[in-house]
Amino acid sequence: MNSDITLPTLLEIRAAHERIKPMIHRTPILSSTAINTLAGCEIYFKCENFQKVGAFKARGAVNAVLKLGKEQMERGVATHSSGNHAAALARAASASGIKSYIVMPTTAPDIKKKAVESYGGQIIFCEPTLEARKRTLDEVVADTGATFIPPYDHLDVIEGQATCALEIWEDGLLLDALVAPVGGGGLLGGTALTTHYLVPTCKVYGAEPEGADDAYRSFQANRLIPMTNPKTIADGLLTSLGNLNWAIIRRYVADILTANDTEIIEAMRLVYERMKIVIEPSCAVPLAVVLKNPETFKGKKVGIILSGGNVDLGKLPF
Amino acid sequence: MNSDITLPTLLEIRAAHERIKPMIHRTPILSSTAINTLAGCEIYFKCENFQKVGAFKARGAVNAVLKLGKEQMERGVATHSSGNHAAALARAASASGIKSYIVMPTTAPDIKKKAVESYGGQIIFCEPTLEARKRTLDEVVADTGATFIPPYDHLDVIEGQATCALEIWEDGLLLDALVAPVGGGGLLGGTALTTHYLVPTCKVYGAEPEGADDAYRSFQANRLIPMTNPKTIADGLLTSLGNLNWAIIRRYVADILTANDTEIIEAMRLVYERMKIVIEPSCAVPLAVVLKNPETFKGKKVGIILSGGNVDLGKLPF
Repeated sequence: MNSDITLPTLLEIRAAHERIKPMIHRTPILSSTAINTLAGCEIYFKCENFQKVGAFKARGAVNAVLKLGKEQMERGVATHSSGNHAAALARAASASGIKSYIVMPTTAPDIKKKAVESYGGQIIFCEPTLEARKRTLDEVVADTGATFIPPYDHLDVIEGQATCALEIWEDGLLLDALVAPVGGGGLLGGTALTTHYLVPTCKVYGAEPEGADDAYRSFQANRLIPMTNPKTIADGLLTSLGNLNWAIIRRYVADILTANDTEIIEAMRLVYERMKIVIEPSCAVPLAVVLKNPETFKGKKVGIILSGGNVDLGKLPF
Repeated sequence: MNSDITLPTLLEIRAAHERIKPMIHRTPILSSTAINTLAGCEIYFKCENFQKVGAFKARGAVNAVLKLGKEQMERGVATHSSGNHAAALARAASASGIKSYIVMPTTAPDIKKKAVESYGGQIIFCEPTLEARKRTLDEVVADTGATFIPPYDHLDVIEGQATCALEIWEDGLLLDALVAPVGGGGLLGGTALTTHYLVPTCKVYGAEPEGADDAYRSFQANRLIPMTNPKTIADGLLTSLGNLNWAIIRRYVADILTANDTEIIEAMRLVYERMKIVIEPSCAVPLAVVLKNPETFKGKKVGIILSGGNVDLGKLPF
């Protein structure tokens, strides 16, 4: 880890939780006898699909907005995002009475575009490449003076996402393992950090689609390898790992496990059929890797963070 | 009401709840700010889609099986059902170590057939008419000596379904209205009975699809009118009102409200999108009628029983 990065402390994560509490849900932890039998372990699902804006991203966005100074507030916030962070930031801004400018790829799911609009965010469309997103965002920031709140590679965002695992540990579950999906790495980084502070004996795993496996390859090579041409149904996990997130993940994550799209869809279907809850494909990756690696999780108490439930219902893969 | 019908008392409903408790879930009550804003009232959803076998039917089936005598237990149970009662009875029987014979129409959704099989029920298929179901069931009962546990027109079943509203009232919500779907009338009858005993000031409404509106027509005519040729997406509500259920409903239900299939699908989509939970079409009818009758529910605290979540995911209507 670079010596000049100062990671959020446990006190700071607890303070973030107090800060954002009035604006987020404390989400429930559910389990399913049928899925436990199939997996051969005891799984506890932390349901961030029930979170405000339908995803854990509400935590980081609210935390980042509430930490802005008065002048920054007046100029508003801006970001680029494939979806959930966009809605989360628009809502966080709107709830604090400030403006938000959201750069979105034209290919983002309809439900995510509508969500941003319904929260009063101003959408600026761009081509679906990371380069186009960054260029468009730079223009927006130059025009408006808005503060850029990145989707994941930002300490205030990571600190906010870290509050999800804080709630799991506050609930008193004694987990042997905790699995979170990894795209940009904000949720996995925050989860690993909180767990390192509170229950260092619990192994934290990242779950990644094979078609966007930069975290897996980075972990194997022990250096950050960016993702090029990702291709997976898990549309929330297309982005490359952030630098800050990688610094946390390489240190505090036990392993990165991958699953292919068929396995992800199968896990997604299981959650719909057996738990009767709506999740997006990205959210099914942790269950897919747990089912795929029975020897790793056999007989253990396993936490899984269900990251979000924003899916185009007309395009379900089953 | 016929003077020779002795309805379950409050003490008996409470005893049924104690009896079935170890074999059912106490389901949560959820709400959604977005749906409340849209509906103009405060809605509390009792989530029986999270119940064992994915539907409230687990309650009545377990209660009826646990009340059988030893000799009856040895010969097993039998029923005809379009789905959820079938799975519920198969599971209740299997959990008590007894046999179950389930007469099902060939047209029943795959997920419901599989559920019966997975619980160890023996399926006997018949044509999708009430006459064929009854004839086939009579043959099964004659062959096996099994006890027929009807899907709804049976006091032990009604007593079991009545425990759902009991949990709502135990949770301490002060509702002005409580809305349950009505097919055969077991859930609505049980709900009306418990509410009559505990909170008689709360109005109980039945919610029915326009394409299977025998309860609505019976209520208007003040006499039981059977359903012929029902046609609706709400496949759990095709059956005609039972005699016992009608005796309770005509006395203790405030009104029957109907919605068409377009309104039912729209309500179903709202629940998926905003609450991130999986429900079957029958289960969306109460929300559909609440949205359709804003003047009736404006500003009130409204309970809605979400009856079940067993839907063929490959055939979602959106």
